Parts: sequence; structure tokens; C-alpha cells
Amino acid sequence: MTSTSSPDQKPLFDRVALIGIGLIGSSLSHAIRRRGLAGTIVGHARSAETRATAKRLGLVAEVYATAAEAAKAADLIILCAPVGVCADLTREMTQNLKPGAILTDVGSVKGAIARDCAPYIPAGVHFIPGHPIAGTEHSGPEAGFATLFDGRWCILTPVPDSDTAAIEKLRSFWEQCGSNVDVMTPDHHDLVLAITSHVPHLIAYNIVNTAAHLERVTDSEVIKFSAGGFRDFTRIAASDPTMWRDVFLNNKDAVLEMLGRFSEDLTMLQRAIRFGDGDTLFQLFTDARAVRRDIIQAGQDTGVSAEFYKARSLSPDHKKG
Amino acid sequence: MTSTSSPDQKPLFDRVALIGIGLIGSSLSHAIRRRGLAGTIVGHARSAETRATAKRLGLVAEVYATAAEAAKAADLIILCAPVGVCADLTREMTQNLKPGAILTDVGSVKGAIARDCAPYIPAGVHFIPGHPIAGTEHSGPEAGFATLFDGRWCILTPVPDSDTAAIEKLRSFWEQCGSNVDVMTPDHHDLVLAITSHVPHLIAYNIVNTAAHLERVTDSEVIKFSAGGFRDFTRIAASDPTMWRDVFLNNKDAVLEMLGRFSEDLTMLQRAIRFGDGDTLFQLFTDARAVRRDIIQAGQDTGVSAEFYKARSLSPDHKKG
Repeated sequence: MTSTSSPDQKPLFDRVALIGIGLIGSSLSHAIRRRGLAGTIVGHARSAETRATAKRLGLVAEVYATAAEAAKAADLIILCAPVGVCADLTREMTQNLKPGAILTDVGSVKGAIARDCAPYIPAGVHFIPGHPIAGTEHSGPEAGFATLFDGRWCILTPVPDSDTAAIEKLRSFWEQCGSNVDVMTPDHHDLVLAITSHVPHLIAYNIVNTAAHLERVTDSEVIKFSAGGFRDFTRIAASDPTMWRDVFLNNKDAVLEMLGRFSEDLTMLQRAIRFGDGDTLFQLFTDARAVRRDIIQAGQDTGVSAEFYKARSLSPDHKKG
Repeated sequence: MTSTSSPDQKPLFDRVALIGIGLIGSSLSHAIRRRGLAGTIVGHARSAETRATAKRLGLVAEVYATAAEAAKAADLIILCAPVGVCADLTREMTQNLKPGAILTDVGSVKGAIARDCAPYIPAGVHFIPGHPIAGTEHSGPEAGFATLFDGRWCILTPVPDSDTAAIEKLRSFWEQCGSNVDVMTPDHHDLVLAITSHVPHLIAYNIVNTAAHLERVTDSEVIKFSAGGFRDFTRIAASDPTMWRDVFLNNKDAVLEMLGRFSEDLTMLQRAIRFGDGDTLFQLFTDARAVRRDIIQAGQDTGVSAEFYKARSLSPDHKKG
């Protein structure tokens, strides 16, 4: 692990522009500097406060109030902004995108990005939508850390005219940020993520909403007794509201399809409960346990419970540093 | 923190019997010994393997193949078994329950326990159903640890003829195990837990099931890309299948009521997605974030993300010790 590239070794990109410096943008800065993947990192953030924080934390060498300025002369431009603003940002940058540069993004929806940003990509610029499957429930430039992408998957969804060499260079970039890389079509990405990410977030948001509007159970009771499972849903439901609104607005079809499946299955379970069908419940609960085992074996989660971490008294104070 | 009671101080109970030595039973043994709350801890486990493990780990001084033997001469008997077997276990112990003893349990359903165990409680024995709102996704006698109950709530649901002094003694016991204690009726408990625990588990089990039966997304894709949210549901869905089957069979009415609410709310969200109503989505997601904040402020979760723990390289190997 090195904090800068060695003097003899040319970094993968001369100039990387992070368009948006929240959880993912700031984590990318940490990961890029960990391996010396860029000669210079510059950035753009819409808010003056984020720009000041990014400078203070050393996340970027230069920070700009517009995406167009940040993109100027960059070899790799990474859109790290909510899906809903990516097309506008791309349009703003069009004039300043350097021929040969790679433009990518980190959004949780790929079909809409591929479709909406494409019109603003000048000839000679390599547009390769991407999505690192990594995150926490925290937002903002202070939430990032270098190891966020380690062992996680990053999906690249090249568009029909994406250049092979550019795809391989971007793959190498993500691998050096710690990720495994997979390549698929934008549409297949959106279907897979609908079930592994979008619907889980939606039902987490939904149960928090349901719990907040009961007449016979108070809000204070919901909070006091949340350790029975509910609090884990609130963790998921604490993610950035703007980002998630844009996900649901931009992956409507796949989300509605998966939600239909979910509701059908839930109705079946509801019926098993109503008629006291313990065997069906037991079998289904046992099958679910096996999926968990597979995820741990695939290195996508640890087998350690959150309560265990609590037991070891790791407090939020440990977070920085 | 002392591992035994001081010689001058009489322990709260002379003899505590743990009827069942899984995650909760073993954690209780650790918590009891941490503060010297019992002169002797004995136990019962149905399986010979669990009995051997309990002895090997020093969780109990004596372990018995029947609940009746374990209960003999005990001052505090704690049923730490799935809800569905508690009435039978109580019936088996009836002849051996000592007058003046307290019989309690740790089950996630209280109405059924209060109703089904009551016929087997001899006169002079104090029956006080209870439920510590604490746990992990791990099961068995090796999963327990002393701090599991620290800062968590334990709900006692006395039955109409429960003795006040016995309730206070049991409250003191749980407080010395690290818990906060609340008292309510069994029926109210079941309603509160239906939303804070039972329905969350059900929908976690359900989405794991939905994901496992898709045609256009493979199981391997679900597992690889689970870090987008899905894996957190599998953690919840990894809990003990027998325990959870019994919960749903024994808290049917409250679960069906809460599930009805959940489905109504989900239909509303589904409609907002279908018609592209971003304002409704944004408002609801923002409200959910506030609930999360309240839970952290109430000390029922840390503000630290699981990914952060991963970043600090806390592996499962750290678990024991």
C-alpha cells in the first residue's frame, strides 16, 4: 500500500476529475491516492461547503464550482452524483471533454444513464457507464474511506461503441481501487440491481414508514424496541434520499417487476401464517439461511454480527483516523 | 465487573436453571457469571452435543437431559427454548418447581406463552413471562457473550396474579444482566414486537426467497452483487428457523395486522414509482432517515456502518476471546 505512485512509474491517469464529492467520490479519492493511480485529482461539488471540506481533507488538489471547469484536461472523469443530474452534468461538460478521455459514472441505474448521457458525449471521448456495488448509510465528503471498494464488485456497462482498450483501462482502474470487475449490458444491470439493491431499499424505507404511522404502538416504543430487527432496516433506510429517489424514478420497470414478485411471495407467506402452515415457514426460513452462507463464502459479508462489534465497544468515535 | 459474587454478598438467586442453552441461554450464563448473580447455574438441553458443549465451555455447573431434573431446587427457572415447546417443557417441570421459585422465559411472543404455560404452574410459583430484545443471527451455545443484553430492553409481561416482589426481583436480575426493563401486557408486547421484529424478519425471509426464484437473474449474480443492500436482509434471515416458525405460528393476529399495513403502504410507494412521483418518494425517504437518527440517539444502534468495520479488518477470527 503506497500513498503516491513511485517516481519511476507513470500513474494510470494524469488527471482524474471527480464530479461530485460525496461518499463515493471521497472514497474514490482515498482509493486513488492509496495506489497512486492519478497524477492529479480535481473535483467539482455544487455546494461551497462540500468544496471547502474536500480541500480541507486533501481529497482534491483543485476544486471547481462547475463540472465544466473540473473536466477540463482530465483523462478520466467520474460522475459521482445522483442519477437524476448526470445527464445535465454531462451536457455542461461537453465542450471541455478532451478527446481520448474516459467518462464514467458510479450511479445505481445504468440504462437511464447510458441513454440520457449519450447525446452529450463528443466524438473521441470514451463513455463507459459503471457502478461500484459498495456503500454505507453515510453521505458526504467526510464519509469516504480508502477500503470501501475492496473485494466488492464494480459493474461496467459499455455502450455499443465503447472502445475495448478504454474498457480495459477502466477495468484496471477499478481493480486497483480494490474491486472485482464484471461487464454486462445496462439493462441486465438494472434487473440484477432491482432485486439485490433497489427493492431491498424500498421495503426498508416502507417498513420504517409503516412503523411511524401506527395508532396502537407509539414512536417511542418502536425506537426503544428496535433491536429486534427493525433497527437494521432503518440503517438501510438512512441512505441518501436524493440518490434513492433518482434510482426509483430511473429504474421503474425493473423495480416494479421485482416488487410484483416480492408481493406475490409475501402473500403466499401471509397465507401460510394465516393457516398455521409451520412446515412451509420452516422450509423457507431454512433455505434463506443457506443463501446467507453463500454470501459469506463469496466474501461479500463477514460472519460477524453487529452485536458482536457492539460488544467489543467499537464506538462511532473510532470512525475517523 | 466481577466474575463471581464477593464472598460477603449473597447472590440474587441460589440456583438458576437455564432450560435451553442456545444463543440466549449461553449469553445469560455469561451475563450471570459476569456479576455473580447466581450461586449455581444448571441447565437442560435436548441434544447431547449441546449438553457436552455447555459443560466444556463452563456455561453450567450441571447439565441435565430433562427439564424436570434441571428445574429441581432452582430459585429462578428461565425457559430459553423456541416458543412452541415452552408449554410442554413447563408441564414436564411442574412436579419439580419449588414453591417461591420464579419461572420466566425469553420468547419473542408473550400472549401464547402466558396462555399456554399458565395451566402447568403450581401454586406458590411465580410465573412472569419475559422477553429480552436482543440477539444476533447466530445460534447455539457457542454464540453467546456476556454483553448481549447491555443497553437493550427486556420486557416483562406479568400475568394477572404475578407477585409484585417477584416482578421486582426479576427486574433487578435483568438490570444486572445489563438490560433496561419495561413492563407491559402480553398482548401489547405482541403488537409492538410484530412491527419492530416479526414483520421485519418475515420480509427479510421473503425477499431472500424471491431472489432465489428468478429466471432472469442467477443465484450467483444475487450473491456477487449482494452488497447493494440484499446481504443485510440475509443477515436477518439467517436467524434460527425453528424459533421464527414458532413466532409466526404464535403471534398470528398481530403479524397479519402489521403485514396488512405494510402491504398497503408498499402499494402506495409502488404507485408513486409507477407515476414518477419523486416528491412523495423524497419526503418518505427523508422521514425514514430521521427515525434512524432517533434510534442511534436512544442507544439502540451505533452510527458505525458494517462496511467501516470491514475496513478496520475485523474478521470472524476475532469473535472468540
